[in-house]
Amino acid sequence: MAFSDAIFAIIITLLVLDLRPPDVPPGHLLSGLLGQWPAYVAYLASYSYVAVVWLNHKAAFNRIQQTDRGLHWMNLLVLFTTALLPFPTIVVSHALQEHDKADQRVAIAFYALIGASLCATWLAFYHYLARRPDLLKEQVRHEFFRIERIRALAGVLLYALAGVLGYLVTPLVGLAIFLLPPVFYAVTSAGLYHFRFIRRISRRAPPSAG
Amino acid sequence: MAFSDAIFAIIITLLVLDLRPPDVPPGHLLSGLLGQWPAYVAYLASYSYVAVVWLNHKAAFNRIQQTDRGLHWMNLLVLFTTALLPFPTIVVSHALQEHDKADQRVAIAFYALIGASLCATWLAFYHYLARRPDLLKEQVRHEFFRIERIRALAGVLLYALAGVLGYLVTPLVGLAIFLLPPVFYAVTSAGLYHFRFIRRISRRAPPSAG
Amino acid sequence: MAFSDAIFAIIITLLVLDLRPPDVPPGHLLSGLLGQWPAYVAYLASYSYVAVVWLNHKAAFNRIQQTDRGLHWMNLLVLFTTALLPFPTIVVSHALQEHDKADQRVAIAFYALIGASLCATWLAFYHYLARRPDLLKEQVRHEFFRIERIRALAGVLLYALAGVLGYLVTPLVGLAIFLLPPVFYAVTSAGLYHFRFIRRISRRAPPSAG
Amino acid sequence: MAFSDAIFAIIITLLVLDLRPPDVPPGHLLSGLLGQWPAYVAYLASYSYVAVVWLNHKAAFNRIQQTDRGLHWMNLLVLFTTALLPFPTIVVSHALQEHDKADQRVAIAFYALIGASLCATWLAFYHYLARRPDLLKEQVRHEFFRIERIRALAGVLLYALAGVLGYLVTPLVGLAIFLLPPVFYAVTSAGLYHFRFIRRISRRAPPSAG
Repeated sequence: MAFSDAIFAIIITLLVLDLRPPDVPPGHLLSGLLGQWPAYVAYLASYSYVAVVWLNHKAAFNRIQQTDRGLHWMNLLVLFTTALLPFPTIVVSHALQEHDKADQRVAIAFYALIGASLCATWLAFYHYLARRPDLLKEQVRHEFFRIERIRALAGVLLYALAGVLGYLVTPLVGLAIFLLPPVFYAVTSAGLYHFRFIRRISRRAPPSAG
Repeated sequence: MAFSDAIFAIIITLLVLDLRPPDVPPGHLLSGLLGQWPAYVAYLASYSYVAVVWLNHKAAFNRIQQTDRGLHWMNLLVLFTTALLPFPTIVVSHALQEHDKADQRVAIAFYALIGASLCATWLAFYHYLARRPDLLKEQVRHEFFRIERIRALAGVLLYALAGVLGYLVTPLVGLAIFLLPPVFYAVTSAGLYHFRFIRRISRRAPPSAG
Repeated sequence: MAFSDAIFAIIITLLVLDLRPPDVPPGHLLSGLLGQWPAYVAYLASYSYVAVVWLNHKAAFNRIQQTDRGLHWMNLLVLFTTALLPFPTIVVSHALQEHDKADQRVAIAFYALIGASLCATWLAFYHYLARRPDLLKEQVRHEFFRIERIRALAGVLLYALAGVLGYLVTPLVGLAIFLLPPVFYAVTSAGLYHFRFIRRISRRAPPSAG
Repeated sequence: MAFSDAIFAIIITLLVLDLRPPDVPPGHLLSGLLGQWPAYVAYLASYSYVAVVWLNHKAAFNRIQQTDRGLHWMNLLVLFTTALLPFPTIVVSHALQEHDKADQRVAIAFYALIGASLCATWLAFYHYLARRPDLLKEQVRHEFFRIERIRALAGVLLYALAGVLGYLVTPLVGLAIFLLPPVFYAVTSAGLYHFRFIRRISRRAPPSAG
């Protein structure tokens, strides 16, 4: 947990290194700063993404009693894709400040690819836990991580949608959609299980786990 | 706390990355280093700002018994604006080393904007706690965080003043004022509540909380 | 442990800073991103290397009861060579993106040198523990760290091989071999002692240490 | 402690960011890497310096029972000068790779200034503790931190010497002396108190504190 927490803290803080003084002629700082708005949107998208990944990580490990080697590797996989995030962030931010539409589409698709991969590693992580109830704390319902997979899958689909729309229609649509998954994950960070219509599907009492 | 502490530690340490060897012709290193003085002032201002934010954060969480989701988000908001600080720091430091007055004013105003936003997130943080006495440790007086809001508000006003004076009068005035809030927060980091004239307003005994 | 863990977390996360938007003319982002593949391989090699170093470190300290000054310095030596890793990583990644074969050979040999040095510090670390059973937890077999030295030595040899082949034959062979030690260390991260044919050599029961 | 430890870990790891692929024409990577040797010496000097600062910090806090606000600020002062270290490191490393003797002298003197300041903050730190025995653990002798001040003072003098000789005689002499204080601090990191000839001066039994 300490190692993972440190990694999340570092990633979320490193993102700011991509916000630089604009390279403009003297006297144009204001327009230069304003012209960097795509960098701010990209920063906001990635910052919130890492923040919710951290919240999810905490929520998951609060329900885990013990880890085994497999879970260790699942965790390292999640950390790997999260640690990559600053790379597509700066690619998007650069491309949107240049004025080449083709590049912007590629950049959006690239961010979507990494974003979806990150959700996919969560899918693997939740799937592993769904099949290993022995690793969970006693009071955690077996359905919990089965249902959590829906959240991960929703993220994969959202990023795929952002990638496809951003590539085929217009990059800014993709950029806008990038802001949605963090919101979705923030709202549902205590687990989809706590939403009534999801619970009804699995017909069980809610878990009391912390 | 560990996650927040790590973030503060990283931000405060990343600031040094903006201190670089000056880009001067051979034989001019000394004058180059001296000519970078605005970078040192900006570094000092931001270093002390993050240091007192960390002290405040510690002082606040020492009084908190338990967190809920709302407090979590308030905390992430504080971390978000703090994590942004290296960006205006380097913008100010660059602008003051160029010789364009207009840019320097914009840079000072920009730093003031982020500095004030950071205080504003503290205002929200303290306000939340002032309305949720159930989250606090038993021995903490309800007035404590109500009064803490004054400190946050003072910061908002100080940075606003720095921004306005730096923009309208001269950038160096703004830069000088940037050094004040950290001093103010350092002196009052145990809480305004401990100052007699503030206590007199609320007419209550001092809290014994750690 | 906390200090070491933080260092591993920082190193592993800093690696991403070397993944940058490619410096290509407008409209060539896609080919530019694809053309950076050596950077991705180098990133993957170093990321996995640090990840397994962390796992090994954890596995070793789980068996250690108390540290003394000598072990402290052994640990700082391991941290030193690990902290160096981002340097050869970016050297390899740059060289492979230029088209000079001689430089590529040098870069691969350089990475191999640092990689082998890192394994050599582990060799020293394990050797120290092999000779100081009094520092270990009671239930840890004395053979454990004696046998662990084989793992470290295997790493030294693998990196040496990668360096020689990469230098004399072709750089890509070296690059490919760089991916092997992390896999080897990952598979054996619980200690070679747990492998039956190794155990047979030392003719003893397995340790029950965590 | 956790906050300080994180800062030391980050500083020590950030140093590697200044080791970059040399900017040489194709086919000259080897000579380029070798030509960067001053960067390696500077890296080694600063890495070892931060490592011993961390060891000293640990050794000091092992003897401290409780902190007060004054000690908090002394600690932040030590962290401030330590966090600055990557700046003179890169200035020295750059200057020694250019071929201007005047700049090299300035760079060495600048590093010496920061190095000496860091020791001076330790002097203040130890002095504070020497006058506040109530903050120390019971079994720690009052003389302990009084004597520790000698170590800090020795560092101030060593860096001053390196600066003066490096500036007046030749930069490389200064660079060589920079490697001495870390060695001195490493050897004495358990406290000068443990050296017999120092103990004789204070005529007391050794402390049994961890």
